[in-house]
Amino acid sequence: MTLTPPAPALVGDPLASVGTPSLLIDLDAFEANLRDTAAFVAGHGVALRPHAKAHKSSAIAQRQLEAGAVGICCQKLSEAYPFAAAGVRDIHVTNEFVGRDKLLMATELASHVRLSVCVDALPQVRALGEAAASAGVTIDVLPEIDVGQNRCGVTTHDGLFELVEAIAAHPGLRFAGLQAYHGGAQHIADWAARKDTANRAAERAGTFVRALEARGVRCARVTGGGTGTFEFDVASGVYTEVQPGSYAIMDGEYGGIAWHGAVRPRNSLFVLSTIMSATRPGMVVCDVGLKGLAVDAGLPREVTWAGSEGPPLAYIAANDEHGKLETVGAPKTDTTQFLGQRVLVTPGHCDPTVNLHDQYVCFRGERVEAIWPIDARGLSR
Amino acid sequence: MTLTPPAPALVGDPLASVGTPSLLIDLDAFEANLRDTAAFVAGHGVALRPHAKAHKSSAIAQRQLEAGAVGICCQKLSEAYPFAAAGVRDIHVTNEFVGRDKLLMATELASHVRLSVCVDALPQVRALGEAAASAGVTIDVLPEIDVGQNRCGVTTHDGLFELVEAIAAHPGLRFAGLQAYHGGAQHIADWAARKDTANRAAERAGTFVRALEARGVRCARVTGGGTGTFEFDVASGVYTEVQPGSYAIMDGEYGGIAWHGAVRPRNSLFVLSTIMSATRPGMVVCDVGLKGLAVDAGLPREVTWAGSEGPPLAYIAANDEHGKLETVGAPKTDTTQFLGQRVLVTPGHCDPTVNLHDQYVCFRGERVEAIWPIDARGLSR
Repeated sequence: MTLTPPAPALVGDPLASVGTPSLLIDLDAFEANLRDTAAFVAGHGVALRPHAKAHKSSAIAQRQLEAGAVGICCQKLSEAYPFAAAGVRDIHVTNEFVGRDKLLMATELASHVRLSVCVDALPQVRALGEAAASAGVTIDVLPEIDVGQNRCGVTTHDGLFELVEAIAAHPGLRFAGLQAYHGGAQHIADWAARKDTANRAAERAGTFVRALEARGVRCARVTGGGTGTFEFDVASGVYTEVQPGSYAIMDGEYGGIAWHGAVRPRNSLFVLSTIMSATRPGMVVCDVGLKGLAVDAGLPREVTWAGSEGPPLAYIAANDEHGKLETVGAPKTDTTQFLGQRVLVTPGHCDPTVNLHDQYVCFRGERVEAIWPIDARGLSR
Repeated sequence: MTLTPPAPALVGDPLASVGTPSLLIDLDAFEANLRDTAAFVAGHGVALRPHAKAHKSSAIAQRQLEAGAVGICCQKLSEAYPFAAAGVRDIHVTNEFVGRDKLLMATELASHVRLSVCVDALPQVRALGEAAASAGVTIDVLPEIDVGQNRCGVTTHDGLFELVEAIAAHPGLRFAGLQAYHGGAQHIADWAARKDTANRAAERAGTFVRALEARGVRCARVTGGGTGTFEFDVASGVYTEVQPGSYAIMDGEYGGIAWHGAVRPRNSLFVLSTIMSATRPGMVVCDVGLKGLAVDAGLPREVTWAGSEGPPLAYIAANDEHGKLETVGAPKTDTTQFLGQRVLVTPGHCDPTVNLHDQYVCFRGERVEAIWPIDARGLSR
C-alpha cells in the first residue's frame, strides 16, 4: 500500500497553512547573512568555506558557493556525499576518521571532488595513503593542530613534523595546510573575551605555521574558525580560510552572545509549532518537543506568536513530542482561546536541530517561497 | 550523479566490520523483552499496546503484534503512516492535534486502519467530527484525562462529561474509553515511590471511570502506562490496556531506575562507535556525538569496549560529531593504542536517539542478523 503523509507545505502556500512542526527559514534574513558574511570575509582577503554540518542542505551550499564560498566543509565523510552528488567540487572534511568503510568513502569521494581531510596520528596517514594509492586518487591532507579545543589534533610541533613527513611519503597524499579549530571559543558570551581567546588560538596556530616554515614547509591553507570567531580570525594574519556554519541560519545560543564588531548574522531559523492543548491556566502545550528541537544547549529561549497575539511565552519543558509553554508575567488565566494558534520557536542549537528535520520550508513575508531538502540529514558516518 | 554512501552493514557481516556510528539491537535481549513483557501483561488479563514512538520501526511493531500486542500507539498522526502502510491494523494516537493537515491525516488513516485518537477540548471534537462525517469514516475517540502529568488532558469530571457528550453528537466519532498517561511517573528511581505514584494515577483514572459509569457511560478501554509503571498498571484493576514503548529496547535512564518486581526489561540498544582520535593522555575521542545520541536525559552513563580490552571509560562531553571519553580511575596515560578500537554506548534516552538514525543493525552474538529500517524516523506531524 502506498500510504505516505501529505507534504506539510507547497511552494506558494501562505505561511498560515504550513503543517507543524516545520523547520522554517526566513529568506530575507538568510540571504542577508550569506551576502554580508561573504563580503566581510572577502574584504579581509580570506577565503570563506562554510561548514555544511550546520545546515546539511545542498540547496544552501549552492547558494553559499554562488555568494563566493571557495568550497564547503563537512564533518563526516558520508555527510559529504549529497553535496558531491549535487555538484559541489571542493569539500574539506574537518575531522579524523578510522576504519575500512571510511577509507572507501574517502577514496570514492576523492574520485569525484577535490577532497581534503584531517589527520592527527600516523596510523591514519598510513591507512589513507595506502587506500589513496590503491584507488589511484589524490587526497589533500591537513593535519589538525590543537589550538585550545583540547579534543583532537596534535599538541606539539614534533608531532606535526612527523605527520607532515609521513604525508610526504605517500604519493596519493598531498600536504595542504593545517586545520586549526577552537570550538570552545565560539560561544564565549563576552565579546572581548571571545576575541582574546580567538586571538590566542590564532597565535598558537601561527607558531605551528612558522615552525613548519623554518623547516621549509609552506602552509598554503590555515583553516578554522566558526560563527563566533570568524570576525577575529579573518584579521589574524594566520588564517587563510574560515569555516563558519551557523552564520547562515543562527540559533538561540549564537543569538545570546555579544556582537560588537562589524558583522552580526541574524536569526533566520525557526520551528513553527501549533498549540494543540490548552487545559490549564497560564499554560499551553505545543506540538514540538525533543523530536523537533535539540536541547543540548538548553530549552529554547525565544517563543513568539505567529500570526496572532498573546501573552509572552516561555518554553519550560520538552517531552518527546510536546513542548510545555508558560505565560510569562501575566496572571495565570484561562488559555483555551489559544488552542490552534501557532508559535515560532528559535532553536537553542541549530546543528542538531536541523538534523531532526527532512526539509526547510523557506518563506518570505507570509508566503512559502521554496522547499529545500536537508539531504545530508542523518549522515554521520 | 548517483553517489550515495555505502551501507554501514549487510546481513551476515561480522559485528567487527559494521560502519560507525551505527544503532545496534542485541536480538537476544530484544526478543526476551518482547516475550517476557507480553507474557507478564497477558497474565494479568490486560491488553498490551506498545508505543511505537520509542522504536519508530514497522519491523519491530510486527514482531510486537506477533508476540500478542492488540495494536500499537503512535504519538503523531504522520508517525502512524509507515505502520499503516506495513499492515498494522489498529493504531491509537495518544495525543491531541489541531489543524487542517492533521484532520486530513486522521481521516485518511481511519479509512485504512482502526484509528483511535485523543481529545481534551471541545473544538478538537467538533473539527474531528466534521472531518470524519465529510470523509465518511469512523474514528474512535478517547478523551485524555490528567492523572498527574500536568500537561494535556481534562482535569475535571465535568470537563470529561462535556467531551463525551460532544463525541456522541457526531456520527463519525465513537467514544471508546479514556487515555490516562502519567509520564512523570515512569522514571521515578525508587521502586516503591514509583509504585505509589502509579497507583495514585490509576486511582484518579478510576474516579473518572466511575463518574462516567454513574451516568450510564461505560469505558471499554482505559489505556495508559509506560515502561516504568506497567507492572503496577496491569494490577490496578483500572487499566484495560498498557502502552509501554521503551521496554523493547530500553535506555540508560530506564536502566538506572530500581526494578524489584516480576519484570525487568534488559537493555538491547547500543550505539557502536569508533575511537577516531587519541592524542591526549587519559582521553580518547569517539565518532558519535549529538547527531547520534540524544542527551536530554544527560550524557550516556555506560560505555564499554567492543571486541577489545581497555580501561573503564566515561563519556564526558558530546559535540556535534565527537564524543569525548575519559579513562576512569586509571592513571592518565598514553591512549594512542586505542585509536581505531570500538565502543558500545548505551543511549541515555532511547526515543530521541532512535529518531536520529535511519536503521537498526540487529545482531546476535558477533554477527549481523537483520537490518530494520526506522521508517517512522522524523515523522513528527
